[in-house]
Amino acid sequence: MTQTWLWIGVFSMAFGCIFFGIGAHNGKNQQWKILYTLNFFICLIAAGLYLAMALGQGVNIINGRPTYWVRFLTWFCSTPLLLLDLTFLGRTNILTTGSLLGANAYMIVTGFMATISSKPVSYIWYVVSCAAYVAIVYLLVKPYRSEAQRKHPRSKSAFTKLVTIHLVLWTLYPVVWIFSAEGFNILNQGGEAMSYTLLDIASKVGFGFLSLNTLHTLENARESMGVEAVGV
Amino acid sequence: MTQTWLWIGVFSMAFGCIFFGIGAHNGKNQQWKILYTLNFFICLIAAGLYLAMALGQGVNIINGRPTYWVRFLTWFCSTPLLLLDLTFLGRTNILTTGSLLGANAYMIVTGFMATISSKPVSYIWYVVSCAAYVAIVYLLVKPYRSEAQRKHPRSKSAFTKLVTIHLVLWTLYPVVWIFSAEGFNILNQGGEAMSYTLLDIASKVGFGFLSLNTLHTLENARESMGVEAVGV
Amino acid sequence: MTQTWLWIGVFSMAFGCIFFGIGAHNGKNQQWKILYTLNFFICLIAAGLYLAMALGQGVNIINGRPTYWVRFLTWFCSTPLLLLDLTFLGRTNILTTGSLLGANAYMIVTGFMATISSKPVSYIWYVVSCAAYVAIVYLLVKPYRSEAQRKHPRSKSAFTKLVTIHLVLWTLYPVVWIFSAEGFNILNQGGEAMSYTLLDIASKVGFGFLSLNTLHTLENARESMGVEAVGV
Repeated sequence: MTQTWLWIGVFSMAFGCIFFGIGAHNGKNQQWKILYTLNFFICLIAAGLYLAMALGQGVNIINGRPTYWVRFLTWFCSTPLLLLDLTFLGRTNILTTGSLLGANAYMIVTGFMATISSKPVSYIWYVVSCAAYVAIVYLLVKPYRSEAQRKHPRSKSAFTKLVTIHLVLWTLYPVVWIFSAEGFNILNQGGEAMSYTLLDIASKVGFGFLSLNTLHTLENARESMGVEAVGV
Repeated sequence: MTQTWLWIGVFSMAFGCIFFGIGAHNGKNQQWKILYTLNFFICLIAAGLYLAMALGQGVNIINGRPTYWVRFLTWFCSTPLLLLDLTFLGRTNILTTGSLLGANAYMIVTGFMATISSKPVSYIWYVVSCAAYVAIVYLLVKPYRSEAQRKHPRSKSAFTKLVTIHLVLWTLYPVVWIFSAEGFNILNQGGEAMSYTLLDIASKVGFGFLSLNTLHTLENARESMGVEAVGV
Repeated sequence: MTQTWLWIGVFSMAFGCIFFGIGAHNGKNQQWKILYTLNFFICLIAAGLYLAMALGQGVNIINGRPTYWVRFLTWFCSTPLLLLDLTFLGRTNILTTGSLLGANAYMIVTGFMATISSKPVSYIWYVVSCAAYVAIVYLLVKPYRSEAQRKHPRSKSAFTKLVTIHLVLWTLYPVVWIFSAEGFNILNQGGEAMSYTLLDIASKVGFGFLSLNTLHTLENARESMGVEAVGV
């Protein structure tokens, strides 16, 4: 069952690559091209991850169970791009952007430590990683959203929706972790693979669509930035 | 024989460091200094690589043959700088630059996977890596070159030459790979070491000279950007 | 004794995180927030490092002695932020900033090679790493300082002080290395742990305070940049 879900991941992410890749090529202006390209690379990285796992790579027996440590390696590369989706749409300043990327990197690295450590040390790292995630939640809900809404007064609800969906999806990752064999061992291998695959599809391909939709909303409200504003 | 070629690599790259380093120090303006500095770091990284290999480090027996996996680690750092040589000269926009760097990183990582995997899985990664390279070719031949030529109408041929030589050199890398023990096993250890060393010298030291030559051409055509244009 | 010093490291860095984190939150303008945030992340990375080491992670028996290789991994991430403290205060151009970051990365990677290699190869890497450090010294004393002083003519002494203290602290790291078991074996495990911990506290928490103090001096001399100048 694990294997099936890994291949579903490969094909879903490949679909995302094709869809966003064509969009990047045909984008009507630099802004659309940038957003499509970000989503293209997010799916491309995830496609590589799922291909490796489906081929039996990036997994080792750690603490007596097969552990797909390669997930963290690719999340380390794809999650910053997801955050750049958000900061690009919100025209976020460099301080909030940098803080988000820093907290995110810290969350992934300490989550990796939680995954490769044995209990109870793994729980210490899990708590540290969750604390980093709480910092991300704060940054997105407060400084990120208020700046985005100040700069796009006619599209306030679009950013509330974007942040809410983003946070719901990301919150489910540590929930899956704690229910899997790394934590309370309620979810079996297949269930864990299924959960992560569905979450990855929703938070990468699905969230990519949402980001495009948001740019559309901003454009309709004539609040998307000009090309000169994105430093191109 | 392998050892000899590795030391040739050390000394060639050290020569490159000295040459470009002096140039960076004496560069007549910020623009020349930046280009020299980029080439200096490219050679510096490669010098470190060859020193490590010559000292017997960064190599392990993988799939029954000694595999210099450290090459990929250093290519991961030096190839982006080589692409920045190109985008710096061409005054490339951030979208094309980012796409080039992303495709390049993907190519190196999947090439690394091809090298450490056993056959036939290695061929899957080889194909993926080559696909990323095709994307780089497309980006350089089309959006990169057309933008560079639009911004330097009097130096069109300089960019065609720059891109052509770059692509000829980079294309030879996967050719060497497929003929080496990782692929069809036609090239022996010494031949592989020789090929990679010569390619590295040509594509790092040699290409560095070409980039300087190109900046000279742009200056003569009075098309080099002012210091303010490079964000300094 | 080693263990005690590692926990002292955890608590000192955690204190730094809290102090700089509160400062980042309450900073009176974007400039102060950026400087506090940089120092916050420097301490956060170091706190993670010390927590890992205190939990017995990131250490392996290499060449017959326990080697905390994880230090280099975290220095690779925290030292660039320390240099950004300096370049942010000095409003350094991109060429000097990039050169500093490049030389620093090279110093850390080759220092890591020195630490995991056996003698006498380790001494070769040690010399290479020290050479990279000499390049950093040159860059800070000459181009960095002269640019910073040219841009802040009324605060010249502040930059001399900042660079001097920075260099004194950083120079002690290779001194500790050469006296530890990796080098001449004069310093025992506990002494090495103590030395690195004290140096880390001084060069991260202490230097963080100094950087804040320098910004204060610049503000009093009305020479701190406006928000628009930092690209926000």
